[in-house]
Amino acid sequence: MPSAKGPEFLKIPYAEMLTTFRAILTRQGFSGENANTCATIFADNSLDGVYTHGVNRFPRFVKYVTEGHVRPENEAVCERTVGCMEQWDGRLAPGPLNALKATDRAMEIAGVQGMGCVAIANTNHWMRGGTYGWKAARNGFVFIGWTNTTANMPTWGAVNSKLGNNPLVIAVPYQNEAIVLDMAMSQYSYGMLEFNRLKNQQLPVPGGFTVDGTITTDPDAILKSQRILPVGYWKGAGLSLLLDILSTILSGGLSVAEISKQKAEIGVSQVFIAIGLSNLKNFQSISSVVTQIIADYHDSIPEKGSSILFPGEKVMNVRKENTTNGIPVLKSVWQEIQSL
Amino acid sequence: MPSAKGPEFLKIPYAEMLTTFRAILTRQGFSGENANTCATIFADNSLDGVYTHGVNRFPRFVKYVTEGHVRPENEAVCERTVGCMEQWDGRLAPGPLNALKATDRAMEIAGVQGMGCVAIANTNHWMRGGTYGWKAARNGFVFIGWTNTTANMPTWGAVNSKLGNNPLVIAVPYQNEAIVLDMAMSQYSYGMLEFNRLKNQQLPVPGGFTVDGTITTDPDAILKSQRILPVGYWKGAGLSLLLDILSTILSGGLSVAEISKQKAEIGVSQVFIAIGLSNLKNFQSISSVVTQIIADYHDSIPEKGSSILFPGEKVMNVRKENTTNGIPVLKSVWQEIQSL
Repeated sequence: MPSAKGPEFLKIPYAEMLTTFRAILTRQGFSGENANTCATIFADNSLDGVYTHGVNRFPRFVKYVTEGHVRPENEAVCERTVGCMEQWDGRLAPGPLNALKATDRAMEIAGVQGMGCVAIANTNHWMRGGTYGWKAARNGFVFIGWTNTTANMPTWGAVNSKLGNNPLVIAVPYQNEAIVLDMAMSQYSYGMLEFNRLKNQQLPVPGGFTVDGTITTDPDAILKSQRILPVGYWKGAGLSLLLDILSTILSGGLSVAEISKQKAEIGVSQVFIAIGLSNLKNFQSISSVVTQIIADYHDSIPEKGSSILFPGEKVMNVRKENTTNGIPVLKSVWQEIQSL
Repeated sequence: MPSAKGPEFLKIPYAEMLTTFRAILTRQGFSGENANTCATIFADNSLDGVYTHGVNRFPRFVKYVTEGHVRPENEAVCERTVGCMEQWDGRLAPGPLNALKATDRAMEIAGVQGMGCVAIANTNHWMRGGTYGWKAARNGFVFIGWTNTTANMPTWGAVNSKLGNNPLVIAVPYQNEAIVLDMAMSQYSYGMLEFNRLKNQQLPVPGGFTVDGTITTDPDAILKSQRILPVGYWKGAGLSLLLDILSTILSGGLSVAEISKQKAEIGVSQVFIAIGLSNLKNFQSISSVVTQIIADYHDSIPEKGSSILFPGEKVMNVRKENTTNGIPVLKSVWQEIQSL
């Protein structure tokens, strides 16, 4: 039995979480292999501490399956090949399965042609974008990928949401692990705002506007105005717009504007680019060069009380702790999952 | 003669600026063709209103040539081809010439293989990254490119500069023009901080720290601390780090840390990716899809006094004005250029 951390939290061992997810997905019509792959992604995300796109998201994912938004009986298909680039139709199959396939295929193309790109239309939420960055980087590839989303962020100078937070993932191999940047284009997610409101604490840096249009660190005021801030104000707004245009035109899929017309966030557009390193002229030195860059980065003089971490570094510590002690899960969430 | 806008500004017609730049570069040992291409890039950047990487930067560019940092007698060479990817040695040739060649070559590869990538080591400052985005997008290609720089920005939680501001450019064709995002990873450039200090005005949003480590909108305080803020705090810091790692390992060139050990900012590493659109399954609809996305974006409800502009939109207006009225140049800058 998992040991209780407090009155509300359980600590679920990885194996138990995986088995639980797999059984539920099998009952939902996933094939044995797909149930296992998808359950592994949700369990791994939880193990890595990305609970919002792991265990905490699992009930909603299952709800999307039962409501027919996510179609476990479908498989993504390649519709067009242009050299090292492929355009796929995701056929509303489970987002994590489509994304993993697209990543694998981009790596396969890159293995032969140096670089590979899969743009996929009509897919579903990939959960944690970092999943695919870790996968590619652990296999020795550079990874660049992004997704569009439903509109949830106003552009700079606007009061209503026309932009998605369109997460961007960039990953590179590092020692036996990876450096993985997984950043949404909003400074904070709505989940993070709610978390801070619940704890009755201000955000460390401004995250949005009050209803009067003043920039604020008050999560409650931002949740009331629904005006979250793009990363870097006009800069992240611009990057979000470009990522949407690229994923839409390269995949031939839906844009943020089109996705937002639907009742649920389905049929999103994604891009997966892998770049092979093993045939580069400098392959032999790449590993030591990345190690040197990180050593120099870690050599920064920290502000009092700060740790200098590279993207993905914290994840490795959380993974280690959760592997040893089990994955912390709200008791109510775990009970809900067990009832599925 | 150009008409004077005030006591300090001249308005130089485009043709006169181009002729002036070309003559100076020819005297500096540029071949006729290279002098013309490089002069055109500097004049075009000025015409588009990017004076910091146009006319205002020209004297420093010439100084780098006379000091031997930029070598007009050299030409970049391709050292390794791996499928749709090439690794080039820039041989410290003029950065704008190398970058334009790399862009042209990435488009050429993409024309055949769907996507093309040129990673170039030992190159020099490309001036305005948008130049290459405009070039590719006007020719019907998606463009993604970035450069590393000397260290000029602390990472999140640090007090000293270990990161470059590593500009990222993403461009797509739009009607007969382009949408071009050209963003450095710092919220403001040092040039912009100096400009605001000169005008004795606060920044619209926080741009860095005071010497005491407080986030501030005061340009003078930031120039004193030399602690500029990354776009989106920890997020832009992470993106900057990843862009540096990618440009370094893909080109086999110098990292930000290595560049920073030199007396001048030379020998930087850059990546140029072009993606062809004409063979995609949805090619016929791409133009109208981008127009629809921009129409929806423009349909945002603006905050009082705000304009909703896409990246590159303002440039088109400035270009029109400067074409008609001449390019505004500080009289002292133009006098310095004429003495070169």
